[in-house]
Amino acid sequence: MTDISIPISSVVIFGSGNVATHLAKAFSSNGISIRQIYSRNYQHARALASQFNETKAIEHPQQADTGADLWLIAVVDDAIKEIVSALPPFNGIVTHTAGSISMDVLSRFPHHGVFYPFQTLSKERKIDYNSLPLLIEGSDNVTTQKLLKLARTVSPIVSEADSGTRGILHIAAVFSCNFVNHLYTLSADLLANNGLSFDFLTPLIQETTRKILTMPPQKAQTGPAIRNDKTVMNKHLEQLKDNPTLKKIYQLMSENIIHYHQAQ
Amino acid sequence: MTDISIPISSVVIFGSGNVATHLAKAFSSNGISIRQIYSRNYQHARALASQFNETKAIEHPQQADTGADLWLIAVVDDAIKEIVSALPPFNGIVTHTAGSISMDVLSRFPHHGVFYPFQTLSKERKIDYNSLPLLIEGSDNVTTQKLLKLARTVSPIVSEADSGTRGILHIAAVFSCNFVNHLYTLSADLLANNGLSFDFLTPLIQETTRKILTMPPQKAQTGPAIRNDKTVMNKHLEQLKDNPTLKKIYQLMSENIIHYHQAQ
Repeated sequence: MTDISIPISSVVIFGSGNVATHLAKAFSSNGISIRQIYSRNYQHARALASQFNETKAIEHPQQADTGADLWLIAVVDDAIKEIVSALPPFNGIVTHTAGSISMDVLSRFPHHGVFYPFQTLSKERKIDYNSLPLLIEGSDNVTTQKLLKLARTVSPIVSEADSGTRGILHIAAVFSCNFVNHLYTLSADLLANNGLSFDFLTPLIQETTRKILTMPPQKAQTGPAIRNDKTVMNKHLEQLKDNPTLKKIYQLMSENIIHYHQAQ
Repeated sequence: MTDISIPISSVVIFGSGNVATHLAKAFSSNGISIRQIYSRNYQHARALASQFNETKAIEHPQQADTGADLWLIAVVDDAIKEIVSALPPFNGIVTHTAGSISMDVLSRFPHHGVFYPFQTLSKERKIDYNSLPLLIEGSDNVTTQKLLKLARTVSPIVSEADSGTRGILHIAAVFSCNFVNHLYTLSADLLANNGLSFDFLTPLIQETTRKILTMPPQKAQTGPAIRNDKTVMNKHLEQLKDNPTLKKIYQLMSENIIHYHQAQ
């Protein structure tokens, strides 16, 4: 483990969800051997393992291969601790992939770190590895360097990021990706319920994205709320009166836009 | 007015904001004469008029040129009625550009309609006319045809849309553009307050957009809320405890994502 020049070449993956699936594929396609896959649901582990040559599904974390270079724990945050406590002793590197969990949860292992893909990953969709930022943290310099090297085999966008930075970036990602996507979901339903296609929104969504990648989002703001156009806002709220969810989001976001820009 | 074959070739524009500015430029660059520009703020009218040849700024709606083919009212919704009542009689076409205002507000004119650009327009940013959907409504067939023809000189994306359709699309646009942009604004501030660049989010925002243009947004959802990952959500809320605005939006949106996907 102390030889910085020996790259990570074999991995055990814990998890079978979006992150586990995509990272397993990424590693495998870069010549890294996926030794084993563990999942709480053994069938899921088998299904994922079957996608690679010579990869075994395992039923218990205790069976983890201590001959591998890296154990990558890519499970929901609530399950990390349980897996960590069930693992055998290991002198290789142990990482998790969680944005908001401290590296210290892995401190029972001498070499540990974080391998956080800062991207929205869905199983159904192929990753463009050129736009997959990987945020890395290591418990010691050799571990950090080895993880950075591994990350760079997968993606050109690699940064070191400590727990504090990762935590802030994760919150920003929830607002800019998860909540944004949910707004698209609500819009799609509103249109569908009125017999209209979501395609109507394509040019608008594309331009909204293009704008904030070229100008500060504060300057890109448009719409009734920033104009404090009560006529339109009241009309929209009236139209949403039978949809308390949309109405509540409409009110909160509009009030927030008004106050934000009045305070500028 | 009754000859469908004679296209609209001269326009008076009421307003000097984002929509008025961009449509004036769009018309002018397609050979339509901008006869006059009116704005509540005369200096704004002069500034916009100066960008075109032989365009006059006017101080009162009463001075509107009754020899023009089209009067286009592109002002905030609250100001439309006042301008309409101040205008002289006119046999040409009178339109407004508002998504959520009925065409009927213009019914004192024999030929009237709506010319609604379904896009987020900022003065600082050039329009790509190829991605500027224009939604058209007319009080009679000749008016509708003339407005559709005018719209097609500006953009390839032209649809007819009645008041009901326009109203729904406008609400969807508020969710998918205005609220989305505000989430980007809040994210940018969160990052800036922690010394981090908004550029970190670029790959994530681009992928979020690409995803929902190729798969239903319901299927594209990721993040702690859809996993009902209380550990992460509670941690984020704890980190946001000194920012009641972000905390409130975080709670409402997360609860909504949880309920939405549990009900599916």
